[in-house]
Amino acid sequence: MRLSVRTRDPASFARTGTLSLAHGEVRTPAFVPLATKGVIKTLEVHEAADLGFDMVLGNTFHLFLAPGHELIARLGGLHRFMGWDRPVITDSGGFQVFSMGHGAVADEIKGRGKPSPAGPNGSRATVQIAEAGVTFCSYLDGSARFLGPETSMAVQAALGSDIALVFDECTPFHGGRDYTARSTERTHRWLDRCLTWHAEHGPEGQAVYGIVQGGVEEDLRRASAQAVAARATGGIAIGGTLGEDKDQMFEVVRWTVEELDSAAPDRPRHLLGIGDVDDLVRGVELGIDTFDCAMPTRIGRHGMAVVPDPAGRWRVDLAKGRYRESDEPLLEGCPCPACAHGYTRAYLHYLLRARELTAMRVLTVHNLSYLQHLMASLRDAIDAGRLAEAARAVWDGAAPWEMPAAAPS
Amino acid sequence: MRLSVRTRDPASFARTGTLSLAHGEVRTPAFVPLATKGVIKTLEVHEAADLGFDMVLGNTFHLFLAPGHELIARLGGLHRFMGWDRPVITDSGGFQVFSMGHGAVADEIKGRGKPSPAGPNGSRATVQIAEAGVTFCSYLDGSARFLGPETSMAVQAALGSDIALVFDECTPFHGGRDYTARSTERTHRWLDRCLTWHAEHGPEGQAVYGIVQGGVEEDLRRASAQAVAARATGGIAIGGTLGEDKDQMFEVVRWTVEELDSAAPDRPRHLLGIGDVDDLVRGVELGIDTFDCAMPTRIGRHGMAVVPDPAGRWRVDLAKGRYRESDEPLLEGCPCPACAHGYTRAYLHYLLRARELTAMRVLTVHNLSYLQHLMASLRDAIDAGRLAEAARAVWDGAAPWEMPAAAPS
Repeated sequence: MRLSVRTRDPASFARTGTLSLAHGEVRTPAFVPLATKGVIKTLEVHEAADLGFDMVLGNTFHLFLAPGHELIARLGGLHRFMGWDRPVITDSGGFQVFSMGHGAVADEIKGRGKPSPAGPNGSRATVQIAEAGVTFCSYLDGSARFLGPETSMAVQAALGSDIALVFDECTPFHGGRDYTARSTERTHRWLDRCLTWHAEHGPEGQAVYGIVQGGVEEDLRRASAQAVAARATGGIAIGGTLGEDKDQMFEVVRWTVEELDSAAPDRPRHLLGIGDVDDLVRGVELGIDTFDCAMPTRIGRHGMAVVPDPAGRWRVDLAKGRYRESDEPLLEGCPCPACAHGYTRAYLHYLLRARELTAMRVLTVHNLSYLQHLMASLRDAIDAGRLAEAARAVWDGAAPWEMPAAAPS
Repeated sequence: MRLSVRTRDPASFARTGTLSLAHGEVRTPAFVPLATKGVIKTLEVHEAADLGFDMVLGNTFHLFLAPGHELIARLGGLHRFMGWDRPVITDSGGFQVFSMGHGAVADEIKGRGKPSPAGPNGSRATVQIAEAGVTFCSYLDGSARFLGPETSMAVQAALGSDIALVFDECTPFHGGRDYTARSTERTHRWLDRCLTWHAEHGPEGQAVYGIVQGGVEEDLRRASAQAVAARATGGIAIGGTLGEDKDQMFEVVRWTVEELDSAAPDRPRHLLGIGDVDDLVRGVELGIDTFDCAMPTRIGRHGMAVVPDPAGRWRVDLAKGRYRESDEPLLEGCPCPACAHGYTRAYLHYLLRARELTAMRVLTVHNLSYLQHLMASLRDAIDAGRLAEAARAVWDGAAPWEMPAAAPS
């Protein structure tokens, strides 16, 4: 794999380029839709290509538990299994097993909410973390399962993804500096074990990304970035606790990118689990090449559409009563396949209230398309030397196709 | 509206033709997918056109209760509301209100199962049938609602369908001859009230179909067919109790068509709620021009795919454990958009077990496409004078694209 950088924005870390992978090229910066369980929820995976996406993300943890990586391998690998012949990145399962151990999945790790107490029904008790790896109970049948660096890499090898992520501990926000320091060191040891396993057994053409941890401690983050950059990884992902608010999150990202920009300037950078509209703009300015996030698909299933919004929420909740009689389109001027059919907000509101699955599908298509257009317009803005202007337009409430140097829709 | 008959099969009642309606033409014989609540479940309505369908069916009862026909009218009518610019037929709501009164919806009316007893939680108590119409409780909020001949026509006028069905009583199989006779006479009086209302208030270009009732009594059926044929209806639907098995059902259809063939030879005939593969073939041979049925969409949501099957069930249940590791495609050679992506039965089995909504969508697309190809091949077989041969091929397990004179797929 290789990242060819085309344009570097002189005023920021932003850059455009092409990531060449075993199954094709990814135009960067790019948003990567989730095909967590081998499917983009409510869509078929191939529809991501029609929406303009080059890569999707599969989930090692979930596919390991069901249907199992051995079965997927026997059926020809994850690409063939889910009907997608373009690049696939698989996460390592680290986030999911540690989410079970450290409390409610995203909230705790991302620093939102309170630490969840361990207890008879608490989730901590279901996970044992050791140097070898993590033992946990399957959410499907309660059976004891194990994932460690080598297992995770073996699962990802069986899945046959273009990019495998190394197995890491996703440290909780409330873990404290000592725990974070020890955990980050173990993550680096696991990184070496993953690379060793992959050098011997990894499938040809599969790239491996290391993961930078270090919580919200500046010295730990910078050291972790240097440690990952020093290894022979194909690319570098930024994971773990990114802070308790967005400003802290981007400070953590900035520390990391500052180190990577000198220590591994040409390696692609992936920001794990981040994808709000404002986060994508700020992440691009901070030199992130690829992003993944459940947001567009998840909020779509909950009745919400991504829209321009100077107030900073970037979404509208169509299940709200105020849309019952709304003749407005979902989003005026939106070139997405769902908006092309001219559905009114009243129709979508009605479908949501009637629990018609079509509503989830329509909103998923719209939301993914919105992020794809946003990324395409950001790429074009960088190439045209107008990124700052484009970012300002987003803050002011511009739709992706209204941004300076917007991609043709 | 007008039915131009192109070919009449010399050996049966079968015929091909074109039904010209306000929003376009329908190639007959045709299967009409259900857009019951203003959406084809799990699909967008416009996808029916991509699958080759010319018309969909909306449901007066459900749309009357939510979101309400007034709202749909304010938003430009049912076509605009659901994003479909081709013909729409709306049923009258009769089947649904009487289903509430006469027990479990389809089972009772179609003669399957036992009559359901009235009781404190029974559904009979919720419906009062009078000469004026039917009072019932909304399943959404328990409020008392009324549907009668004029209301039903007014709702369908507001929806703006191309074909409105008259309000009828769908007599239960277990009602007995006397009840059926009285009910059928009332249905004829309601037919006159519907036509009177429509002559004064009906939207321009909307056709009205009368409905033949009469249960399983030959004389009542024949008399009802004559009564409906004697009125100035645009077309004629066959409804109500069609018997306790398929042989009886087609005897009832044959009595009806024998009468219609002399009394109203050029008026289109719709068979309500019937759509199994074998039923479509036999219905076409008996001169039915259009069919509607929940089967393809409903069984798709329950994990079943329509397939050729000489054993006569025409379906495969992909949730069964035997498909867990099956590398077989959903259906070899199937030209449908779902099969084109090469999903294995194992993948669909896995998605069903993981409760991924995509599985329902894929199976719905496949099932509808199968019926569309079947109807296209039957049309071509009639035009080629090879209907009997084509029907035999279906019984022998041929897929629609393997039938004599099959439509190109």
